[in-house]
Amino acid sequence: MNIVLIGSGNVATVLGKKIQAAGHDILQVAGRNETACAELAAVLKCPFTINWSFINQQADIYIIAIADKALEHIHEQLNLDKKIVVHTAGSVSKDVLYSVSKNFGVLYPLQSLHKEKEWLPEIPFLVDANSNDTIVLLQDFAETISLNVQVADDETRKKIHLAAVLVNNFTNHLYALAEEYCKNEQLDFKLLLPLIEETTECIKSSSPKDVQTGPAVRRDEATIKMHLSLLEQHPQLVKLYELFTASISSMHKK
Amino acid sequence: MNIVLIGSGNVATVLGKKIQAAGHDILQVAGRNETACAELAAVLKCPFTINWSFINQQADIYIIAIADKALEHIHEQLNLDKKIVVHTAGSVSKDVLYSVSKNFGVLYPLQSLHKEKEWLPEIPFLVDANSNDTIVLLQDFAETISLNVQVADDETRKKIHLAAVLVNNFTNHLYALAEEYCKNEQLDFKLLLPLIEETTECIKSSSPKDVQTGPAVRRDEATIKMHLSLLEQHPQLVKLYELFTASISSMHKK
Repeated sequence: MNIVLIGSGNVATVLGKKIQAAGHDILQVAGRNETACAELAAVLKCPFTINWSFINQQADIYIIAIADKALEHIHEQLNLDKKIVVHTAGSVSKDVLYSVSKNFGVLYPLQSLHKEKEWLPEIPFLVDANSNDTIVLLQDFAETISLNVQVADDETRKKIHLAAVLVNNFTNHLYALAEEYCKNEQLDFKLLLPLIEETTECIKSSSPKDVQTGPAVRRDEATIKMHLSLLEQHPQLVKLYELFTASISSMHKK
Repeated sequence: MNIVLIGSGNVATVLGKKIQAAGHDILQVAGRNETACAELAAVLKCPFTINWSFINQQADIYIIAIADKALEHIHEQLNLDKKIVVHTAGSVSKDVLYSVSKNFGVLYPLQSLHKEKEWLPEIPFLVDANSNDTIVLLQDFAETISLNVQVADDETRKKIHLAAVLVNNFTNHLYALAEEYCKNEQLDFKLLLPLIEETTECIKSSSPKDVQTGPAVRRDEATIKMHLSLLEQHPQLVKLYELFTASISSMHKK
């Protein structure tokens, strides 16, 4: 397939590399930030433009990987007639592309993408489009770069994106809080890395509910009380600790 | 080294296997639950007893891996004179063993241990004892089964245990909540596994604070509002979502 990438951030970069690695051609990178576009074009060894009048008209799929807010205004700046145009956002309806082309859809990578990382992660994709033909074409395309592709409408995709916020953004924030706590208490956060890895490893073969451990699930009031007293200087962590303890108790009394 | 294991649960089982794999001898398993002791003794191919009068007196180290609450009463049931005796608990002072032996300490595995898992995880150890000689001996011993051994007193160990609760127990509960949400909304929780793995992978090379993503850190009020409305039927998740959003905002305005 011939692809034009619109955008030059994390999503555009990682998708561009994945797509190229699967043997497709990236015809062009188009964007607003000249430095970022030039960098990505260099990585992908393809031309770039920041003037959207010069967007290459020969691609099979146009992948728009820009900020959610910018997507709302994309129809004012881009018209691709009948070309297949997709965005990559979890929480934005496909209909935001209604005036951009007669064939539009979504190619949502359910993954945390960081352009500076050296590895290319496994990426499940959720695809959607305004016609069955386009859904099938996007599904076939996504399957060339992923082992896990599912069709999901706007509502389903929004819900999966919400679940992704829980397991990725919130989990990462727990790690950040633990790291901050370790710094304040002069503990070595890196000591916790094998435990963090094991927590992930465990749920690949077990339901997380079934492998819950810790003072809250065993109703160990003495340890909970001791932990809350250790957190006296960290009021934000006290709130979080209490909420998790209540939530774990409640899930495991059912 | 010759080891007696007191206890037959997750910690005793995984430590027993690790210790044996490093070439030490497990002389005996002692416990209260005959079935569990017999099972563990079969795994380790060693004798067992549920009568603590018959605890083997020839070991170099006695490792007590029993519930925190049971540890409080251990001195009523066990006297090992001058033998080196350690417990494995994160939140219990070494002094709980004061009347059990003249040489006592702690060998705390900073890991989530599950006896039914086939793999043996990497385990950082925190060691402590009531004398320098015993600390050195425990440290040398722990280094035969782990690449990461640190000396840590009661207070430090309690704090690290608290941080472990954040990154393991609370993270696992986030996964359990996400799985429950997915079930209720008929979404496939397994779709999230590559994302969960990537979240872990990322913090091995970056500070979690530096790789925070999501609506809260980019102050995307529209998505936050939409997520809260999607969670209308899940009041517990609403509370958690709001607390995390506030906490992420607060960490990233600093």
